Amino acid sequence: MGKSRLEAFSDGVIAILITIMVLELKVPHEPSFDALGPLWPVFLSYVLSFIYLGIYWNNHHHMVHTVKHVTGGILWANLHQLFWLSLVPFVTGWMGENHFAPVPTAIYGVVLLMAALSYWVLQRVIITAQGPDSLLKKAVGGDWKGNLSPVLYVAGIAASIPAPWLALVIYWIVAVIWLVPDRRIERALGLHD
Amino acid sequence: MGKSRLEAFSDGVIAILITIMVLELKVPHEPSFDALGPLWPVFLSYVLSFIYLGIYWNNHHHMVHTVKHVTGGILWANLHQLFWLSLVPFVTGWMGENHFAPVPTAIYGVVLLMAALSYWVLQRVIITAQGPDSLLKKAVGGDWKGNLSPVLYVAGIAASIPAPWLALVIYWIVAVIWLVPDRRIERALGLHD
Amino acid sequence: MGKSRLEAFSDGVIAILITIMVLELKVPHEPSFDALGPLWPVFLSYVLSFIYLGIYWNNHHHMVHTVKHVTGGILWANLHQLFWLSLVPFVTGWMGENHFAPVPTAIYGVVLLMAALSYWVLQRVIITAQGPDSLLKKAVGGDWKGNLSPVLYVAGIAASIPAPWLALVIYWIVAVIWLVPDRRIERALGLHD
Amino acid sequence: MGKSRLEAFSDGVIAILITIMVLELKVPHEPSFDALGPLWPVFLSYVLSFIYLGIYWNNHHHMVHTVKHVTGGILWANLHQLFWLSLVPFVTGWMGENHFAPVPTAIYGVVLLMAALSYWVLQRVIITAQGPDSLLKKAVGGDWKGNLSPVLYVAGIAASIPAPWLALVIYWIVAVIWLVPDRRIERALGLHD
Repeated sequence: MGKSRLEAFSDGVIAILITIMVLELKVPHEPSFDALGPLWPVFLSYVLSFIYLGIYWNNHHHMVHTVKHVTGGILWANLHQLFWLSLVPFVTGWMGENHFAPVPTAIYGVVLLMAALSYWVLQRVIITAQGPDSLLKKAVGGDWKGNLSPVLYVAGIAASIPAPWLALVIYWIVAVIWLVPDRRIERALGLHD
Repeated sequence: MGKSRLEAFSDGVIAILITIMVLELKVPHEPSFDALGPLWPVFLSYVLSFIYLGIYWNNHHHMVHTVKHVTGGILWANLHQLFWLSLVPFVTGWMGENHFAPVPTAIYGVVLLMAALSYWVLQRVIITAQGPDSLLKKAVGGDWKGNLSPVLYVAGIAASIPAPWLALVIYWIVAVIWLVPDRRIERALGLHD
Repeated sequence: MGKSRLEAFSDGVIAILITIMVLELKVPHEPSFDALGPLWPVFLSYVLSFIYLGIYWNNHHHMVHTVKHVTGGILWANLHQLFWLSLVPFVTGWMGENHFAPVPTAIYGVVLLMAALSYWVLQRVIITAQGPDSLLKKAVGGDWKGNLSPVLYVAGIAASIPAPWLALVIYWIVAVIWLVPDRRIERALGLHD
Repeated sequence: MGKSRLEAFSDGVIAILITIMVLELKVPHEPSFDALGPLWPVFLSYVLSFIYLGIYWNNHHHMVHTVKHVTGGILWANLHQLFWLSLVPFVTGWMGENHFAPVPTAIYGVVLLMAALSYWVLQRVIITAQGPDSLLKKAVGGDWKGNLSPVLYVAGIAASIPAPWLALVIYWIVAVIWLVPDRRIERALGLHD
């Protein structure tokens, strides 16, 4: 019961975030194709962030699925996760409107990094709450994606100042890696085979 | 279970989209009937898009109803569908504020077309996931509406540049065609008879 | 099932409407009590509309509770209801920012009137769908509130041009009349006694 | 049934509030670290309000969990609670953009105080509705947090004019006190042990 409310609240916040991001796509005043030109960087940032929020929703879905009892710790680790995700529209707009300038591109990576770390914290809190027979612990096992992503984000942040385009390539690579849903969890749960 | 979360998330996004569109109806500063004059094109665009989003919500409702197991493919095809719908408020505002100028009216049609194609992709992914006895496959059968709509959207886009009013007439015709809910699915499910 | 999705979608839209209305309360630039002065009419409009949307959510809650099978007609009558409610933030902002000037106050009443009529249409559609033994039909019986409200709205609209303050008094009276939830429906359902 | 809709609506409103607050973090035009400088007070206000809304969501979760029958009184006491929470984004933006100037900091405290009082009213209404064997009554017992918070808010409001920084320290102290979820309710319900 508590779990379904946790899911509903998290889904609600992620759904709102993914949708209000589109408000950064400001309606141009001119009715011409040219008017769409300056919007391309904002649009590309929007697509990237849409995919990231989709990934978080998807993985969050599988992770919370393994929760049996919602503890206070899980509630707050979850709000902490949502807090970092809530900054995604802000950094998406900043990076896009400034055509992938170095500083906003680096800060975009910082928010992705913090979102990843808060996801890891939430995972730890759930595993601890589940005790020694944790279903989630078995499922994540050697979580190579979860371990690799922060390293790539740090590389992206470092690359932002000299070569923002390289940072973007790295952010896209991480997104593509995650696009495949975490089948290990699905398999451990025996949900879809 | 996963299915109900997929529905809840999709409903959430569509509910937010249908509602934030109204933010494009900027509150006029003058307290007179004249001040409402320039808002009519925006208002008419809002009504049209409200109906379109209502249609997508309605049909999505019936389609996802047939899903038994949510696969990764269904999740992403659904997010892809939501992505194109998320652009509806933007093109609605652009078309309305420019009083149905040719280019915004054409781009409005492009977003409707992409939304229709992503709906078709989602349908295919669900049918494939359901296997040979797919309930949805039986239900959609010869989907004349689904086949006709993209053709009409292309016609509308082509008409936009020389005659935007004709494009609008076509967009309204498609909306009216879809206003009737897909009774074939309802019948195949034996839900309402 | 379909019913719970109808409720969830409607709740979502009403929750978003009631919340984005607060965005019309523009943050003033000056950090003084004086800066709050011009906001009072906007704030009072917000309170009135908050109560109205709360009333619609509340009554909608009781009405949809009696629905057994969601038909296409109910879906669209419900979207029609939500459409008129979606215009509430717009007219609230317009009326408030113009300090209850005659025209915006009249248009505010028109939207309330249309919302009431679309509520009545939804009620009719549900009763028709339920057939001769309609639970809702028994519950609404002689619906004096539902019959009185449109009359009062028309009176309010008529009063707006010569005396906007009188229109507001009338709108508040209707709100107070409805504040009491429709116990007849509750009683007929045997829910709370 | 009615209870789950009350929860869903409240969760929806709180999820939207917590998310639209981030819209007050206006995207700066300059792509430099310096451009983030003036945003720090807004960001800190955002963090504080995010925690407060998280606390309300969390405690609301536990409180409504004890409700068996949703009465009209509970519905309206709940909307009254949501009304005061809906003003949080407004005062958060005002306080942040004015760098914790005295008046906005005092008004921020007033909204926190009203939210706390409306929470208390909701608690009373639920306890009364539950009658002499009220589960919630047993659970809250000597509610020292609930009794202490309004006193601290009043102290914070009083401190705002001469020393806004002191008011902020007090608001943070209240937040930290509440960060620990109300285990008494959990214990009484035998939910998590």
